[in-house]
Amino acid sequence: MILPENYLIFLGDVASPLDAKTAFGLRDWRPEVCVGQWRLPACRVDLGLPERTPAQAAAAGARTLVIGVAPVGGQIADAWVAALVEALDAGLDVASGMHTRLRSVPTIAAAADRTGRSLFDVRHSDERFPVATGRRRSGRRLLTVGTDCAAGKKYAALSITRAMKSHGIHATFRATGQTGILIAGSGVAIDAVVADFAAGAAECLSPDNEPDHWDVIEGQGSLFHPAYAGVTTALLHGSQPDALVVCHDPGRETMDAYPEYPVPDLRRCIDANLEAARLTNPGVLCAGLALNTSPMAAEERARFLEGLQERFGLPCFDPIATGADALVDHLLRVCPSVRASAPSAPETG
Amino acid sequence: MILPENYLIFLGDVASPLDAKTAFGLRDWRPEVCVGQWRLPACRVDLGLPERTPAQAAAAGARTLVIGVAPVGGQIADAWVAALVEALDAGLDVASGMHTRLRSVPTIAAAADRTGRSLFDVRHSDERFPVATGRRRSGRRLLTVGTDCAAGKKYAALSITRAMKSHGIHATFRATGQTGILIAGSGVAIDAVVADFAAGAAECLSPDNEPDHWDVIEGQGSLFHPAYAGVTTALLHGSQPDALVVCHDPGRETMDAYPEYPVPDLRRCIDANLEAARLTNPGVLCAGLALNTSPMAAEERARFLEGLQERFGLPCFDPIATGADALVDHLLRVCPSVRASAPSAPETG
Repeated sequence: MILPENYLIFLGDVASPLDAKTAFGLRDWRPEVCVGQWRLPACRVDLGLPERTPAQAAAAGARTLVIGVAPVGGQIADAWVAALVEALDAGLDVASGMHTRLRSVPTIAAAADRTGRSLFDVRHSDERFPVATGRRRSGRRLLTVGTDCAAGKKYAALSITRAMKSHGIHATFRATGQTGILIAGSGVAIDAVVADFAAGAAECLSPDNEPDHWDVIEGQGSLFHPAYAGVTTALLHGSQPDALVVCHDPGRETMDAYPEYPVPDLRRCIDANLEAARLTNPGVLCAGLALNTSPMAAEERARFLEGLQERFGLPCFDPIATGADALVDHLLRVCPSVRASAPSAPETG
Repeated sequence: MILPENYLIFLGDVASPLDAKTAFGLRDWRPEVCVGQWRLPACRVDLGLPERTPAQAAAAGARTLVIGVAPVGGQIADAWVAALVEALDAGLDVASGMHTRLRSVPTIAAAADRTGRSLFDVRHSDERFPVATGRRRSGRRLLTVGTDCAAGKKYAALSITRAMKSHGIHATFRATGQTGILIAGSGVAIDAVVADFAAGAAECLSPDNEPDHWDVIEGQGSLFHPAYAGVTTALLHGSQPDALVVCHDPGRETMDAYPEYPVPDLRRCIDANLEAARLTNPGVLCAGLALNTSPMAAEERARFLEGLQERFGLPCFDPIATGADALVDHLLRVCPSVRASAPSAPETG
C-alpha cells in the first residue's frame, strides 16, 4: 500500500478528539504531509491545520483525502458519503481505516470509477495469516499495552522507536492499527483479522530478526476492555514481548464510551499484562509507564511523573512532552542484549 | 442454515481422533442422522459407523456429506477434493466447517454447479456483528472453559443442557464452533468472526432471556493456548457467564499440537478464568469440573472423580460416562435463581 502524498485530513462530523485519533496521529507524526483539514458543519474537533476544501487542498498539493475519524465499530457514516465523492471529483484518492470497505458503498465505488481515482482500505490486508505457533523468535520485542483504548499506546511506541534510534539501537515501529499503518506505511490491523488467526498475524508482524534488533509494537485495546480484550490477548501472545510499556491516561476514570467500566488500577494492569505475556515469553518484564499528561502544566507534570516513578520504581514518561529517553536508558541497563551501536540516520517513527 | 439429513461423515485422511472431533461430535450427539462413515486409505480414525461410499450412503438415505475433520487452520486439503466431487456426483450436498469456503475451491464449485447440489459452510455467517457493549443481560448463563482445545467443552455443555432439561430447568445449548453448529442446527463460529467483533458476536449469541432461563454456552480454546486465548477471552467477556465449568483431559500433559506448552494446573486455570470473567460479571462462580475419563475403568474413574471433588469442593463429572446431574444439583443449591419448573420434553442437546 503506497498512498499518494500529501494528505487532506477529513474530520467529518466528529465530536470528540478520542474519535479523531487517526487525524491527530497523522498531524503529530507525519506533519510534513498534512496540507489541511476538512470538516463538516457539525464537527467539533480542530487539528489546527489550514481549513481546505478538496479543490483547495488539491491546488495546495494534496493527492489523497484520508478519513481521520476512528469511530467505534469502524463504519462509514452516511453523512460522509457526499464529501468523499466531492474529494474524488476534485481529483483526490481516498484512504480509509474503517472496517467497511470504501468500495462496498455503491455511491463511492461509482464515483471512483467515474473519476479514475483510487480507494485505499488500510485496515484490510489481502494476506492470509496462519494459526500462531507459539515458537520463540530471535530478536527483541517491546509491546505497548494500556489501561484502556486510546490511552497513548501508538504514541508511546512511536516515541520509543524514535528514542531507540537516537541511542543507536536498531529498532522498527510495527503498526497494528489503521492510524499506525497510515503513519508507518505498512503493518497489520490486528482487530480486522479473523479471530482464529489474530495471534498468528501478530507473529508474522514481528518475524525473526537480529539478536540486538528491537521491534516496537503498537498495542491495541486493553485486557480490561469488555469488547477488545480478545484482540489485546492475541496481540500480546503473538508478539511474545521481552518488555511491556503500560500506557495510561490519568484523567480518565471510566473506559472510553463504557461508563459502567472503571479504568483499572495501574498496578493491577501491569500484573495482568505480565501474567498473560509470560505464556509465550516467561522472561517478560515491565520496562516503564507512558502517561498522557497533556492537560498538565510543566511543574505539575514533573511532580506527577516523579511520584509515579517512585511508586513503581520504573521510568515514567509522556511520549509527547518528555519523550522516551529515560525508558531507553533504563532498558539499556536492565536488558543485557540491548546495546547501542553507531547511531542510524533519523527516520520518522 | 438447514442441512438436509441424513449425513455421511467424511473422515478424509485424518490420523488423530483429536482432529476428527466434528465426526465424533455428530456420532455421539446426533447418532440418529449418521448413516455411515467414508474414509480415504490413509485414514487411521474409526467412528464405528458402517463404511459407505457416497453412492452407497445415498442409497441408504443420506442427503449430505459432512466433513468430519477439524484440522488446525481449517483449510480444505487437496487430498479431499476428488472425494467431495464424488459425493456431489452421487447426489449428496456437502457441508464443511472449514475456514476455507467450499466455493473458493474451483473444482468443487464447478462440480456443485454441474450437479445442482448445495455447498454449506457452517463456520461462516452472513450476519454482521456489533462491537460488544458490556451491558448486563437478563437470564442466566453457563460457559464451559478448558485447560486446552479439544478438552471436552462441547460435550460438557451438551450434557449439562440435557441434565438441566431433565431437571425441568429451561435451558438452551449455544454452539460456538463448527461441530456444535452442526449438532444444534444453529450458532456462531466465534473463531471465524473478525477479532474486533468476536465479543459482540458472543453477546448476540446469548441475548436477554427469562430470569430463570439458562444459556449453556460451548467454550472455545483456552486462556493458556498460545494461538487461541484471544478467542477464549472474547467469548468469556461476551458471554458474561454466571457459572463456569472447567473442562480437562487428565491424560494430556502438553497442549494438543503444542508440545512446548504445558497444560496448566487446574487450580490456576480456574482462577485465571474467574479473574477474566469477573470483568463483565463480578458474581461469576466456578460450578464444577468436567473430565474426560474415557480411558479409565469404572472403579478408577470413580476414585479419580472423588479425589478431585474432595480437592476442589466442586462436583466433578464426565459428560459421557457419568452425565452432569451432580453439577445441576449443585447449581440448584448455590444459585438462588435456578429453580426447577415442570420438566420439558427431552430434546437433543
